[in-house]
Amino acid sequence: MEEDGVKSWVMAVTAQTPTNIAVIKYWGKRDESLILPINDSISITLDPAHLCTTTSVAVSPSFTHDRMWLNGKEISLSGGRFQNCLRELRSRANDVEDVEKGVKIAKKDWDNMHVHIVSYNNFPTAAGLASSAAGLACLVFSLAKLMNVKEDHSTLSAIARQGSGSACRSLYGGFVKWIMGKEENGSDSIAVQLADEKHWDDLVIIIAVVSSRQKETSSTSGMRDTVETSALVEHRAKVVVPKRIIQMEEAIKNRDFPAFAALTCADSNQFHAVALDTCPPIFYMNDTSHRQVLFLIISRVEKWNRFEGTPQVAYTFDAGPNAVLISRDRKTAALLLQRLLFYFPPQSETDLNSYVIGDKTILQDAGIQKVDDIETLAPPPETNANIPVHRYKGDVSYFICTGPGRGPVVLTDENQSLIDPKTGLPK
Amino acid sequence: MEEDGVKSWVMAVTAQTPTNIAVIKYWGKRDESLILPINDSISITLDPAHLCTTTSVAVSPSFTHDRMWLNGKEISLSGGRFQNCLRELRSRANDVEDVEKGVKIAKKDWDNMHVHIVSYNNFPTAAGLASSAAGLACLVFSLAKLMNVKEDHSTLSAIARQGSGSACRSLYGGFVKWIMGKEENGSDSIAVQLADEKHWDDLVIIIAVVSSRQKETSSTSGMRDTVETSALVEHRAKVVVPKRIIQMEEAIKNRDFPAFAALTCADSNQFHAVALDTCPPIFYMNDTSHRQVLFLIISRVEKWNRFEGTPQVAYTFDAGPNAVLISRDRKTAALLLQRLLFYFPPQSETDLNSYVIGDKTILQDAGIQKVDDIETLAPPPETNANIPVHRYKGDVSYFICTGPGRGPVVLTDENQSLIDPKTGLPK
Repeated sequence: MEEDGVKSWVMAVTAQTPTNIAVIKYWGKRDESLILPINDSISITLDPAHLCTTTSVAVSPSFTHDRMWLNGKEISLSGGRFQNCLRELRSRANDVEDVEKGVKIAKKDWDNMHVHIVSYNNFPTAAGLASSAAGLACLVFSLAKLMNVKEDHSTLSAIARQGSGSACRSLYGGFVKWIMGKEENGSDSIAVQLADEKHWDDLVIIIAVVSSRQKETSSTSGMRDTVETSALVEHRAKVVVPKRIIQMEEAIKNRDFPAFAALTCADSNQFHAVALDTCPPIFYMNDTSHRQVLFLIISRVEKWNRFEGTPQVAYTFDAGPNAVLISRDRKTAALLLQRLLFYFPPQSETDLNSYVIGDKTILQDAGIQKVDDIETLAPPPETNANIPVHRYKGDVSYFICTGPGRGPVVLTDENQSLIDPKTGLPK
Repeated sequence: MEEDGVKSWVMAVTAQTPTNIAVIKYWGKRDESLILPINDSISITLDPAHLCTTTSVAVSPSFTHDRMWLNGKEISLSGGRFQNCLRELRSRANDVEDVEKGVKIAKKDWDNMHVHIVSYNNFPTAAGLASSAAGLACLVFSLAKLMNVKEDHSTLSAIARQGSGSACRSLYGGFVKWIMGKEENGSDSIAVQLADEKHWDDLVIIIAVVSSRQKETSSTSGMRDTVETSALVEHRAKVVVPKRIIQMEEAIKNRDFPAFAALTCADSNQFHAVALDTCPPIFYMNDTSHRQVLFLIISRVEKWNRFEGTPQVAYTFDAGPNAVLISRDRKTAALLLQRLLFYFPPQSETDLNSYVIGDKTILQDAGIQKVDDIETLAPPPETNANIPVHRYKGDVSYFICTGPGRGPVVLTDENQSLIDPKTGLPK
C-alpha cells in the first residue's frame, strides 16, 4: 500500500442488486449462525428498474473503522451477520491497483483496511419485500468487486447467505434456486440460476403494498419458533418441498403457467399454515387491514382463476404486508390491474402516478389514464351481478408493476455513486 | 299393532343431548358416506344446562311419512345421512308396549311405521357450536328410546356418527374419545368415555359468540377439499394426532392443565393450519370481524399465559365464528371474564343479562353486576401501561359461561315434550 502523500484517496465501487420473491418458500434454518435452510427454495428475481438496492462501497487509508449507512442513517456493523460477510470477503481479497489514482492495495493489506458502505433501497425496508436480501447481496457483490474477489457468483451467494438467507438468491437474475446443501460448513448451500430473466419474460408481477410499516415478528425469530414447535414443518421440509422443487423446476423450464401458479399459491399458503402451526401461532397476515386485503386478494384471484377455467394469476405472500401477484402475460396483467384498482381504489386525493408505480405501460394497457377512470371501472365479470360489490378505498398504499429482472450489476457512472469521492462519506 | 279404534294414538319420547367441543380436532374423512375419520379426536361435552338440543320423537299409525322440524321449521329428511340413521335404528328396533295407551308395536312393524321428529337447539344452528352434533346425537338417542333399541351408547354413537361425525361424541358426558376405527364398515368407529364430567369439574368454559351467522364453507366440503389437496393433513392424521391423543388422554387423566392447554391450543391452530394449506385455502376465521376477535383472543390469551408463567386458559376454535376458552378453575374464569369484557364491552343498549348467559355465578365472581361495571374495568396487568389499549365494543355478540356436562337424558316431564300428544305435530 502506497502511503506517501496519498492518505486522502478514496476508492469506491457502486453496484445495483435486485430483490427476489420466493415461489417455493424458505422457512426454517438447520443452522442459525451459518444460515443453512431446512429445504431448497426457488425465487424470481424482480426487475431492479423498479425494486433494487444500490450500494456504494469505498476503501481509504483514512477510514478508521468499518462503517455503514442504510437509507441515509448510519447503522451498526457489529452484528454477527455483517461480520461473517466481511470476514469471508477479506479472506478472499486480492491485489488491487488503480493506476490513475496511483493506488495499490496488496492482498495482505485488506485485513487492515476499513470500508465504508452506503446503501439505499428504493422500496420500504422490512416491509416484507426482501430488502435485506437485496441489501446483503449488494453489499457482498460490491465489496467483492472492490476487493477484487475472483470467486464466481455461486461462492458469493454462499457469503451473502451468511448475511441474510434469501440474499443468496439475489446474486442472479431470472429464476433462481437456493440449494440447501448438505455440508456442515455450508459450502454447498448456494444459489444457482435455473433460467435467466429472458426465458419467461411474459410474466408480469404486480405487488400490492398494503402498508410500509415494519412487520411485527422478525423472520429470524419466527422461523426459529416454527422449527422448534411446529409439528408440520419437518414434514413440509423433508417430504413436501423436495417434490415441489422438482415440479417447480419443470414448470419454469416449460413455461407451464398452470403448474407454476398452482405450486406458487399452494406454497405460499403452506408457509402461512406452518407459521400458524407454531406455538404461539404466527399470523404474518398481521393487522386487520393487511389481513383483509390479503384475504380479499386470495379469494378474488381464486374466484377469477376458477371462472376462467385455468389460472390467470398466481399469488404469493411473504412475512410482510404485501401481496405479490404474478400474471401469465401482459394482457392478463392489464385485466388484473383493472380488478385490483376496482377493489382497491385510491383515496380521492391520491395521484395516479404515485398509486401505480413501476412499469406504467400496464396501466396504459388497462386503459386507465386518470383517477376518474378507476371510479368508473365495472365489476369483474366473475362477480355475481346480484350481490353488491364492496370497494376498499384506501386499503392499499400503492401498486408496483414489474417483472422478472436481471442480477447484480456494477454502475460505472460516478454520478450514481452514493459516496463522496473526497470524504468517503455518504453524498 | 292394534288398529281397532286406536288410529289416533301418538307415542312420544323427549330427550336432551349436549353439544361438545373438540380439543383434539376431527378434520378429514376416510369414508364420506359412512363418515369414518382419518384420525381419533377428543372432546369435552358441554353442560346441557347451557347448550343442548332437545328432541321429541313420536310414532303414530296416523303418520304417513317420516317428518322433521328443526327450530320451528320443517326440514327434509331425504338426505342420506338422516336415512342412514333411521335405517340403522329401525333394523335394531324391538317390541314396544304402552299398556296405559293400549299400544303395542311389534319389532317387525317398525319398518312400516313413520316417525315425527321435533328438535330445538338453544343456540345458533351452524354457527360452529356443533349444533349438528347435538342434533343428530339427540335424534338417534331419542329414537333409540322410542324404538326400544337395546344396544349400548357406543353402538348408538356409531349410528349417530353416520348422521354427523362429531355427533358420536355427544352420546357421553365429560371427556370423550372418538376412536377412528379400522373396519371398512365402520363398526369400530365409535365414541368412548374417557372420564365423566365430575372427574375434572374445576374447568370453566367461556364461549365468545362473535356472530350467529351461518358459516360460509360447510365442514363437509371443507374437510373433503383438505383431504384431497393439503400436503400436510396426512402427516397430521398419521403422525401428529396419534401422539397428541396419547398425551391428551394422560393430561385429562391427571388433570394436568398446562399439558391440556398446550395440546388444545396447538391442535386448534393446526386444524386452521391444514385448512389454510387447502387449495383453495379455507379461512374459517372468515370475515373481518370474526378474524379480528379470534386473533385478538389468541394473542391476549397467549400474552396472559406467558405473563403468569403457566397456562391459565386454553383456546380452541372450530369452523364457526366462536371462540371457546377453557380456564383452569373458577378463579381464573372470573379473571378471564373480566379480560373478555374489558376488551369486548357490549354495545351501550345491551342488557348484561343477555350479554353473559349460562352460568351467571362466574359473572358474580368477576364482580360485575351491571354494564357500568364493565366500563370501569382496569386494563389487565399483563398489558403495557405505556401503550393505549383498544377496546372492541360490540364485536362480540354474547358470552356463554359453561363447563363440562353430562350426556344425553330422557325428559320424562310431558310438559317438556315438543310434540303435541294429540296431533303428533310440533306444539
